[in-house]
Amino acid sequence: MFYHFQNLINPIVDDEPDPSAANALQEGLGGQFGEMRTMMQYLFQSFNFRGEATPYLDLIQGIGVEEISHVELISKTISKLLDGAPEYRGKKFDVPGKGGKATMDMAKEQQNPHHFIVGAQGSMPVDAAGNPWSGSYVHCNGNLVLDLLDNLVLESTGRLQKCRIYQMSENKTLRATVAFLIARDEAHEMAFAKALETLGVEWNKLLPIPKFDSSKYPEVKKLIDAGINREQYHFRLDSSQMEKIFSGSAPANDGTELVTLAEPSEKYPIPPAPERPEEFAPGLDPELDELAAALTEAKAKLGNGKSKGSGPKARAAKD
Amino acid sequence: MFYHFQNLINPIVDDEPDPSAANALQEGLGGQFGEMRTMMQYLFQSFNFRGEATPYLDLIQGIGVEEISHVELISKTISKLLDGAPEYRGKKFDVPGKGGKATMDMAKEQQNPHHFIVGAQGSMPVDAAGNPWSGSYVHCNGNLVLDLLDNLVLESTGRLQKCRIYQMSENKTLRATVAFLIARDEAHEMAFAKALETLGVEWNKLLPIPKFDSSKYPEVKKLIDAGINREQYHFRLDSSQMEKIFSGSAPANDGTELVTLAEPSEKYPIPPAPERPEEFAPGLDPELDELAAALTEAKAKLGNGKSKGSGPKARAAKD
Amino acid sequence: MFYHFQNLINPIVDDEPDPSAANALQEGLGGQFGEMRTMMQYLFQSFNFRGEATPYLDLIQGIGVEEISHVELISKTISKLLDGAPEYRGKKFDVPGKGGKATMDMAKEQQNPHHFIVGAQGSMPVDAAGNPWSGSYVHCNGNLVLDLLDNLVLESTGRLQKCRIYQMSENKTLRATVAFLIARDEAHEMAFAKALETLGVEWNKLLPIPKFDSSKYPEVKKLIDAGINREQYHFRLDSSQMEKIFSGSAPANDGTELVTLAEPSEKYPIPPAPERPEEFAPGLDPELDELAAALTEAKAKLGNGKSKGSGPKARAAKD
Amino acid sequence: MFYHFQNLINPIVDDEPDPSAANALQEGLGGQFGEMRTMMQYLFQSFNFRGEATPYLDLIQGIGVEEISHVELISKTISKLLDGAPEYRGKKFDVPGKGGKATMDMAKEQQNPHHFIVGAQGSMPVDAAGNPWSGSYVHCNGNLVLDLLDNLVLESTGRLQKCRIYQMSENKTLRATVAFLIARDEAHEMAFAKALETLGVEWNKLLPIPKFDSSKYPEVKKLIDAGINREQYHFRLDSSQMEKIFSGSAPANDGTELVTLAEPSEKYPIPPAPERPEEFAPGLDPELDELAAALTEAKAKLGNGKSKGSGPKARAAKD
Amino acid sequence: MFYHFQNLINPIVDDEPDPSAANALQEGLGGQFGEMRTMMQYLFQSFNFRGEATPYLDLIQGIGVEEISHVELISKTISKLLDGAPEYRGKKFDVPGKGGKATMDMAKEQQNPHHFIVGAQGSMPVDAAGNPWSGSYVHCNGNLVLDLLDNLVLESTGRLQKCRIYQMSENKTLRATVAFLIARDEAHEMAFAKALETLGVEWNKLLPIPKFDSSKYPEVKKLIDAGINREQYHFRLDSSQMEKIFSGSAPANDGTELVTLAEPSEKYPIPPAPERPEEFAPGLDPELDELAAALTEAKAKLGNGKSKGSGPKARAAKD
Amino acid sequence: MFYHFQNLINPIVDDEPDPSAANALQEGLGGQFGEMRTMMQYLFQSFNFRGEATPYLDLIQGIGVEEISHVELISKTISKLLDGAPEYRGKKFDVPGKGGKATMDMAKEQQNPHHFIVGAQGSMPVDAAGNPWSGSYVHCNGNLVLDLLDNLVLESTGRLQKCRIYQMSENKTLRATVAFLIARDEAHEMAFAKALETLGVEWNKLLPIPKFDSSKYPEVKKLIDAGINREQYHFRLDSSQMEKIFSGSAPANDGTELVTLAEPSEKYPIPPAPERPEEFAPGLDPELDELAAALTEAKAKLGNGKSKGSGPKARAAKD
Repeated sequence: MFYHFQNLINPIVDDEPDPSAANALQEGLGGQFGEMRTMMQYLFQSFNFRGEATPYLDLIQGIGVEEISHVELISKTISKLLDGAPEYRGKKFDVPGKGGKATMDMAKEQQNPHHFIVGAQGSMPVDAAGNPWSGSYVHCNGNLVLDLLDNLVLESTGRLQKCRIYQMSENKTLRATVAFLIARDEAHEMAFAKALETLGVEWNKLLPIPKFDSSKYPEVKKLIDAGINREQYHFRLDSSQMEKIFSGSAPANDGTELVTLAEPSEKYPIPPAPERPEEFAPGLDPELDELAAALTEAKAKLGNGKSKGSGPKARAAKD
Repeated sequence: MFYHFQNLINPIVDDEPDPSAANALQEGLGGQFGEMRTMMQYLFQSFNFRGEATPYLDLIQGIGVEEISHVELISKTISKLLDGAPEYRGKKFDVPGKGGKATMDMAKEQQNPHHFIVGAQGSMPVDAAGNPWSGSYVHCNGNLVLDLLDNLVLESTGRLQKCRIYQMSENKTLRATVAFLIARDEAHEMAFAKALETLGVEWNKLLPIPKFDSSKYPEVKKLIDAGINREQYHFRLDSSQMEKIFSGSAPANDGTELVTLAEPSEKYPIPPAPERPEEFAPGLDPELDELAAALTEAKAKLGNGKSKGSGPKARAAKD
Repeated sequence: MFYHFQNLINPIVDDEPDPSAANALQEGLGGQFGEMRTMMQYLFQSFNFRGEATPYLDLIQGIGVEEISHVELISKTISKLLDGAPEYRGKKFDVPGKGGKATMDMAKEQQNPHHFIVGAQGSMPVDAAGNPWSGSYVHCNGNLVLDLLDNLVLESTGRLQKCRIYQMSENKTLRATVAFLIARDEAHEMAFAKALETLGVEWNKLLPIPKFDSSKYPEVKKLIDAGINREQYHFRLDSSQMEKIFSGSAPANDGTELVTLAEPSEKYPIPPAPERPEEFAPGLDPELDELAAALTEAKAKLGNGKSKGSGPKARAAKD
Repeated sequence: MFYHFQNLINPIVDDEPDPSAANALQEGLGGQFGEMRTMMQYLFQSFNFRGEATPYLDLIQGIGVEEISHVELISKTISKLLDGAPEYRGKKFDVPGKGGKATMDMAKEQQNPHHFIVGAQGSMPVDAAGNPWSGSYVHCNGNLVLDLLDNLVLESTGRLQKCRIYQMSENKTLRATVAFLIARDEAHEMAFAKALETLGVEWNKLLPIPKFDSSKYPEVKKLIDAGINREQYHFRLDSSQMEKIFSGSAPANDGTELVTLAEPSEKYPIPPAPERPEEFAPGLDPELDELAAALTEAKAKLGNGKSKGSGPKARAAKD
Repeated sequence: MFYHFQNLINPIVDDEPDPSAANALQEGLGGQFGEMRTMMQYLFQSFNFRGEATPYLDLIQGIGVEEISHVELISKTISKLLDGAPEYRGKKFDVPGKGGKATMDMAKEQQNPHHFIVGAQGSMPVDAAGNPWSGSYVHCNGNLVLDLLDNLVLESTGRLQKCRIYQMSENKTLRATVAFLIARDEAHEMAFAKALETLGVEWNKLLPIPKFDSSKYPEVKKLIDAGINREQYHFRLDSSQMEKIFSGSAPANDGTELVTLAEPSEKYPIPPAPERPEEFAPGLDPELDELAAALTEAKAKLGNGKSKGSGPKARAAKD
Repeated sequence: MFYHFQNLINPIVDDEPDPSAANALQEGLGGQFGEMRTMMQYLFQSFNFRGEATPYLDLIQGIGVEEISHVELISKTISKLLDGAPEYRGKKFDVPGKGGKATMDMAKEQQNPHHFIVGAQGSMPVDAAGNPWSGSYVHCNGNLVLDLLDNLVLESTGRLQKCRIYQMSENKTLRATVAFLIARDEAHEMAFAKALETLGVEWNKLLPIPKFDSSKYPEVKKLIDAGINREQYHFRLDSSQMEKIFSGSAPANDGTELVTLAEPSEKYPIPPAPERPEEFAPGLDPELDELAAALTEAKAKLGNGKSKGSGPKARAAKD
């Protein structure tokens, strides 16, 4: 069973909107080697796990649970990069229909016009070429050794692609999230490589893949200095045997040590997302808001008396 | 951020393996109106939520978190229905290679041979016709009213299909899970219908969809008697405003009341899944188990001294 | 602009339900060379037609309009083959839920369980292997000669596959429709071959493709004797230049002549499709029917006074 | 059975070519909520309709027939927006091969280069991200209430996306067609909402979705003033019971009345599409035209004597 | 540049037709880890190879060329398993149309009816669940270490799936080919593992994956005894540096040695495939055969005088 | 069985990188009518060939083998067009991470960002709209006449699309390869048209399709003057009966003659592809190169003594 905390695993940094950067980042969300794949692959592997090698199960499943929070983080980062894009670079728009002016004319030239036509300047479960995510991406072979090796390839490819995305944009919103994901992919590479090490493999100098010192990226360096790339969290509310594998020397053989923790030391606030009239989003117009308010008022009087004010928006703001 | 408890939201009931039933149930997991869709649709809608109508956000997201546990439950139910299928009905198989005997000959006649060739008698992210799950199933319009209506259609279609699947099999493993999902789909139908009710819609006698009294199914009746189909859980570790919507009279207008809870009152154990030699799953053979044991022993001596025994399997059994 | 007559282009013949035959016939509906493809390909080619060679446009578009009626015919034939399949061969089912009996247990063994889970014993836009129809099937090159040649290949492949489907079943419902489609595919082969003949090609003895005398099939022979395989209808409510191409000797060079007509000489009734309680279809239960009746009554009194009776079902029966 | 009139349901307005606008409009044609989906969904629902609630069948099918004419209209609008794009903004091109000059150099930078490589500056059955239309978009549940609700969601999403597309371009060709489709989507929203109203639902102030007064768009206002958004046509050549549902007060509860008509009061001419040498389209070169002429001449002498002139092109122009 | 020899890399063994076995084997041809994937993945990796590490290029490309011959072998094995299936087990069929008898009635119950409707009892580029092969299966990362590791996972998964397919059938036609592919997958596992060994990895006892002694399968044992699982061929007509990697001790660390050869020591004849009248295949009927003969005769007289006889069939038989 | 020569079938000409041109060219590689389709279609047709009409088999298969070399050529041409694109037009980049500067900022604006994120400035098995190649493109009907006609349509469509691509770019790298493919498509059109001619068809003035004199393109003219468009190679290491069909007058009826040859008269060198640090490609860093060198040295001493130097890169350069 799964639980949720309305916080992020890493902060989202402010910068200008950038739809092209948002589109590149879609690869990390809905691409063949993106976070939706890692999340579903590790969950399916743990749901279908056979036998009694519990520490391996706990390792795979713990990383799988983390990946849901990555999907949350990258999804919100993409939304942030898209949000308000039509006014980007000094452009202003009126409410829709004001004299028939096209307030989203830039949108039809963007990499994936779906961000504006189908979504409302928000993330989608697709890759950077606009292909929808596919269940065929999920590998769940039911053979532990093979699944571990497949997961190592998956994390290495994810790290490779994120390093490339880093090279493609200087937008701070993009880079903060990408840097965090690079650091975490390194931890996950270590996790699966370490699991294979317990089965006899010696990696010598092969890791990490790609063989690139990501501390050359300032945003990544800060995270590495904080040890983020050698920690693993199990996110378990009961208990986990993950540490039996994820501890001791890192298989990168660089003198670092692996540390298992229950969860990251900090949680980060979710930045607010304003309504977007040019997208007809969300469209809880004043008339409907009044209706909703009236009903809740009535409930409050009859019931627990907790809520006051003129509508869910108003009330939410107060809570 | 997401957390996990290694338990199920509903018990898995024992019965004979039945690969055709497993395949029909795949529709409820990886089909266009299955649990992977509901999970991803509600998560994307909440990650991309705009504006301040927090109770609506908390309702959508809370149901989304529940759906992850549904994916877990249905995934494990399918695995249970497939597990050991080759020995089904008195057949016995030897270890692979014993004289070249085909121990999985029935597998090549099954609805989806991938259950035996690609998976290891386990669930897959595909539908009952073998099509992989697609990101295009996820609707996230960014218009709150439309999203609520789309979600109502999604839950109603899910309930319709699960009622049909119930009619297709008397296998108790299948029916226990399907009955639970029917009861929960009814709760989710109520949730989205109630949210629309707060915006002015009166449903009169339209609900539930399909207009079928599911208490005619004995397994569902038991759950309805326990109130499962009128409860909603928010699964939030901080706090939730879901109750502002999910309370008061049910929009089915049948005299029942909606109740918001933090989580279900009970958690259920996960049934063990044995190794399957005919699938080469998982393949942590004695040699590798020894290696793993040796390493962990060494760690234990140097480190926190927690683990003992001859290998991860042995140790896991002890924890 | 398009118009409709609530009749069929060929009669649907009665026989036992046969879900496997229905599934094979799906290839003719939603397959790569099925009627949805021909319909969309010819419509797209005519919507995108360039230049002033109107007779060619009228030929392509006229056949395109006919294909919509083919989609209608084959869709209803598949539904007929599926309808009532669970009671097939002496089996009986009760209403859903009666003691928890599985009334559709055979459905989970069928070629495409979607016919029972997703559809309600009705046709779907998929092929015989369960793959959904794809827009990539449509070829619209914008080069007239190439489009004509592509269309000839399309009709020839369609005829080949339908001859194979004929060989796969003796069910009379299937065969009546397949025989009609074979005869019409022959007419369409002639149409595109004749158009290429006007541009200089001599076919000699190459046609039809496949080189098989379909009059060996008794159901096809009857249609050939009636001339169905050498007629083409333009279905135009204004006027058409189709005849400038579709007239004179047939390019099969077998002594037959091509005849252009406005429409087929006869229309056929649509067989009724009963409600299917085990599919929760359609679910306009007595309670809702009453509501609908009341409203229409009220309208009738205020308005044109045309309708009477106790509900749409009753009224429909009277009209 | 289906018939055709070589006219459009709405006029196509002249403006500059604009390939990006054409690409955005593809969403309305081949997107998940575009006209191909509505057309196929309503046709499949009516072909698979069960029971005797004929007015509901006639409503669904009548709208389905209209959607074929929408596919025709939007397809031709896209072609118009693409047609001649390479000469757009003062560029001139020679015939292909003249000194090896690239006459379509801009084409390789366009959103979907398929418009120039695969099609010949014409529409395609794909969405704005280049994904081909899929049969999985079609929902045909066989449960009337659910199908009506699904159709309401479909029309609402269609209207939402078209309002967004309107905001993305000031091109008059695009806007005239989009405005017409917004007005018609409103009529269709009313139709399915009204059908649900007959079954007891009261919509109060929820409709239309999105809650936006589209008369703020001047092109839409003109159509609303003419009543286009409250009319529904049945396009039936025999007779229809659509009016039993589509009459009386509109479910938007804004004081307007619904009116059922046989067909729109006017038909509009189809704008000619010139040959495009740079696309090798259509390629009925003088030599082939002569051949075609000779043959038709010969036929004319032997036969009905109707046609004269030097080739199909010439003759077509005269008819 | 590529060349061809009209022979097979392994003999095809005779046994009864078995369409289910044929369908299972499709996974090895068109599945995500089948031979089409390995062929295209290695070819794309070598066409896009960067830098000067030629021995690694030659290793990847050499295996890629071998995979084309595997596609040839497995394709023909599937055709053999399907060929004549309708007469399987004593059934007889007449020529098509003889009294309207269904000569392929069993075909509509088969796993993939496309084998009979779309193909003519021949192989197709699809997997065992009927999904068409997809270009998204090909991984070509452009990072040598990662590509090698990905290839190792690919070969290991291929071997795992083929061991499972072996367990699913005792048909000798299937087993002979599957056994050969298991042996070759072992060689390829060794190749990519060895390449990683040159970069420092020590595999200890991890290989092969799955950890199963395939010599327990008699058909595989024979091939292992002949050394087939430790040889690699480069298939280069100029020269190759493959041996610099593929030599020395095998990374399975079982005392065996790797041997690079130019090509396998033997080539095997291609079994003939008869015409299938019930499939209208190939349809070069006597009339057309005569025409073809006449033309070739004429050519022979005018030209090089090489061919004689009454038609291509007759002539082919003589050559 | 297949063999390889490390050379190209046509030279790759130098010009500036041009990612848009590369993307357009992807249609010729991974598009529905591109070289991957022709290669797989002809190979599947020859693997599934029935009956004894060997000259037709040899014609189809011979062209199929040539298509593998076309896939090689076009794949390398695309890579060439992408290679170094980030420095295009005077831009310079540092090694990754140098101060966090975005060295591939242009990449996120490109038609298909996968060229930079997923591939490493290399070709991919996708079309110009980013859709992955699909096995459903392959037509293998098992009816010889139909397969020949389908192949003629395929080659004609391929030629049409390549003529359009030629019109879209003046880049010399693109044009040299496109011109060669146009010339070869003409030869293949002739081949399948000639095969149909042997069965009685007279083409008169219909061919080539499109009816365009490609010698108006200077690059194509040079190849036509050399006779490239009327030659066909069989690429068979044993022997072939292709000439029985491919000889005599060309079916374009332009006075040219068809000539069958064993292989093209010349082979061309493969241009080197440098490492791309900004893509982390290939990533055989100095440390790993040393390791590889050490191992190979050791082998060389023990073994055949052929290799010297400090690593595979160094050694490869010497060979």
